Amino acid sequence: MDWFNDTLEIPTNGKGLYPFTDSIHGLIRSWDVQEGMCYLYMPHTSASLVISESYDPTARLDLEEFLERLAPENQSWYRHTLEGADDSTSHMRAMLTDTSLTIPIDGGKLSLGTWQGVYLFEHRKRGHRRRVLVRGLQVR
Amino acid sequence: MDWFNDTLEIPTNGKGLYPFTDSIHGLIRSWDVQEGMCYLYMPHTSASLVISESYDPTARLDLEEFLERLAPENQSWYRHTLEGADDSTSHMRAMLTDTSLTIPIDGGKLSLGTWQGVYLFEHRKRGHRRRVLVRGLQVR
Amino acid sequence: MDWFNDTLEIPTNGKGLYPFTDSIHGLIRSWDVQEGMCYLYMPHTSASLVISESYDPTARLDLEEFLERLAPENQSWYRHTLEGADDSTSHMRAMLTDTSLTIPIDGGKLSLGTWQGVYLFEHRKRGHRRRVLVRGLQVR
Repeated sequence: MDWFNDTLEIPTNGKGLYPFTDSIHGLIRSWDVQEGMCYLYMPHTSASLVISESYDPTARLDLEEFLERLAPENQSWYRHTLEGADDSTSHMRAMLTDTSLTIPIDGGKLSLGTWQGVYLFEHRKRGHRRRVLVRGLQVR
Repeated sequence: MDWFNDTLEIPTNGKGLYPFTDSIHGLIRSWDVQEGMCYLYMPHTSASLVISESYDPTARLDLEEFLERLAPENQSWYRHTLEGADDSTSHMRAMLTDTSLTIPIDGGKLSLGTWQGVYLFEHRKRGHRRRVLVRGLQVR
Repeated sequence: MDWFNDTLEIPTNGKGLYPFTDSIHGLIRSWDVQEGMCYLYMPHTSASLVISESYDPTARLDLEEFLERLAPENQSWYRHTLEGADDSTSHMRAMLTDTSLTIPIDGGKLSLGTWQGVYLFEHRKRGHRRRVLVRGLQVR
């Protein structure tokens, strides 16, 4: 078994889902891992990870609006407001989605379903440079 | 260390939670893994994974209705409606639950809590044949 | 590669987020793992895992109240009520958060973001002694 260790930098320009499946595949190719496991970790509290449909862009818009409605800004009961109206909601939205993901690698690629893509979900209004930690376990 | 690689096929007949802990245990026995890690991955965008109570069936019914109310069908603001009224909600429900899970294996079994079971959550009305990718890491 | 296996016991005194990052770091030090992966698993159906902001305590209060409102007690449609008003909601809240987490270890520590902490989320009113299974994969 062997182990690979890299970090992706993904710029965002505010709230929304940003696909980055291709960047992960670039790492897996550079590692030359044929079979094993890919670990993704998001070291931020106001952005998160999601695997969802990558085909029809309207699916993405619905997911974005869904979280906007499920954890709306500017609720009177919010206590954590010093860092802006979008900060506490960004932690809520991160909590409902994923901080870590584990995806099998087979044949040198992520074993995603036909319609799946990997997304970074930015929950702040302002753009950020986000990092995603990517680890690869090669088993053969 | 050793590595095992299998796929479960789980038929569903529409929305709901389908227990499949026993099928995972069948694989772990066939691999003869005593200690390590079990990785589950769902390669579908309209079904997901959940670990929850397996004892009282009414607990399951409440989880099903909870998601039905949290991400209800036929909201006027949905844009992704071409594939049916249950498609965009199925992505929302998958996003709120799990696409990947990692469960320790000890003594040849998943180290689940006393009341825990592993479920496939089907989010579409129509039945499907779902696949779950199962990987085993044997550490001794 | 090497493998480490431990269990943390974390007492709670009712609903809320309980930080336990330091306890995980204690295990990693005792294992002397410098690089690899840390696996966390919650073997309970009414408590869960969350990674979120650890700096401002009001962020935590908002997350607690958010789930209290998203999955409120005493809804007329709940069927699973034999174990108390907080039991079915505790499964809902556990489903929306995490049962398993995978966090990279680098330089002998969890590769958490600057503001991240690891929390146990207790969903029952009464205190419990919760267990968290912790596994360490050392890769070098």
